[in-house]
Amino acid sequence: MKIAVLGTGMVGRTIASKLIEVGHAVCMGSRTEDNAAAVTWAAESGEKACNATFADAAHHAEVVFNCTKGLHALDALRLAGAENLDGKILVDLSNPLDFSQGFPPTLSISNDDSLAEAIQREFSGCKVIKTLNTMNCAVMVDPGKVPDSDVFVSGDDAEARATVSGWLKDWFGWAAPIELGDITTARGPEQWLPLWVRLYAAFGNADFNLKIVRG
Amino acid sequence: MKIAVLGTGMVGRTIASKLIEVGHAVCMGSRTEDNAAAVTWAAESGEKACNATFADAAHHAEVVFNCTKGLHALDALRLAGAENLDGKILVDLSNPLDFSQGFPPTLSISNDDSLAEAIQREFSGCKVIKTLNTMNCAVMVDPGKVPDSDVFVSGDDAEARATVSGWLKDWFGWAAPIELGDITTARGPEQWLPLWVRLYAAFGNADFNLKIVRG
Repeated sequence: MKIAVLGTGMVGRTIASKLIEVGHAVCMGSRTEDNAAAVTWAAESGEKACNATFADAAHHAEVVFNCTKGLHALDALRLAGAENLDGKILVDLSNPLDFSQGFPPTLSISNDDSLAEAIQREFSGCKVIKTLNTMNCAVMVDPGKVPDSDVFVSGDDAEARATVSGWLKDWFGWAAPIELGDITTARGPEQWLPLWVRLYAAFGNADFNLKIVRG
Repeated sequence: MKIAVLGTGMVGRTIASKLIEVGHAVCMGSRTEDNAAAVTWAAESGEKACNATFADAAHHAEVVFNCTKGLHALDALRLAGAENLDGKILVDLSNPLDFSQGFPPTLSISNDDSLAEAIQREFSGCKVIKTLNTMNCAVMVDPGKVPDSDVFVSGDDAEARATVSGWLKDWFGWAAPIELGDITTARGPEQWLPLWVRLYAAFGNADFNLKIVRG
């Protein structure tokens, strides 16, 4: 497939490289087409990799992964353009972490709303699926790093949820993604982050994930 | 030990009965001393069980468990009286769940604060330890129901955290409680509830818990 990965940070580069590895054509989108991290990633990632502006990357893609920082996600998607997202699945990995007061971060949106819902409200023509935001990016693309842990899937469109769950299995190796339900269920995985950051502080590393154990 | 359990709901009754079972003298506290649930529980729970007002229960106790509903927790503790809590460990199991808009609940306090912190600020003479709030009460007192899952401990006083971790092991059967750190770390376990309630809705039962898997 032709996939746009928006965001040039650790999450974006890790996801983009994994998608290349499993055979897709990936265009990394950023604010400017000369973004150094994106240019370097594309140069090092083979003939199926390219980089472009958010708008150009989204325009040519069948599927869009939002790997931007949560505080900038809506702005980045506005630059991508609603017309370039319409009708597509938008896989949203971003977390609304606000580090303006230092560590630990607060959430810029939470409780009776979520970033995933804000994105779906504004970009109503695409199918937002929230997933993978609950863990370090090294674990996202290699679940075996933290064996037998879980990943969640939220989104209004049941068919799109099932499609993304299939990608999580086939592309990333997640045996059994947990489908939570409509996009409002993303409030759960987003509000898990305050516990994640405290565990990160207590453990001193990000090599962990949560598992839901059923009785 | 002489223990007060504040709250007469499912959580309070379950915790109180477990504490009786492991040999403690337990007084169940409620708003009025003729509270039907508390009177019945005391009558059915043997000679080491009694019931009383919040204030009387706390006054005679060495340790206090707050098992009230989160929205009423501060009011209940005011009735218990700061003078009856001073110097004691206050084990806080409450969650600030607000069901006023129906299911799923929102949190009445979250993000840059937590109920545990609000309690510790107002009742500064006691040692608040947040724990056990992350799961159904049947699991709290019988971890074997959901084998190999986790429980968290937050509180400003390191010695009190270690003491409560010991109680979790010896009284309730938790092999390895995870100490997160000071009372602000309670924001994590409290904000886990929005995911808990969505999993409850997705699974149709409360027979689950989270486990932190480390790589």
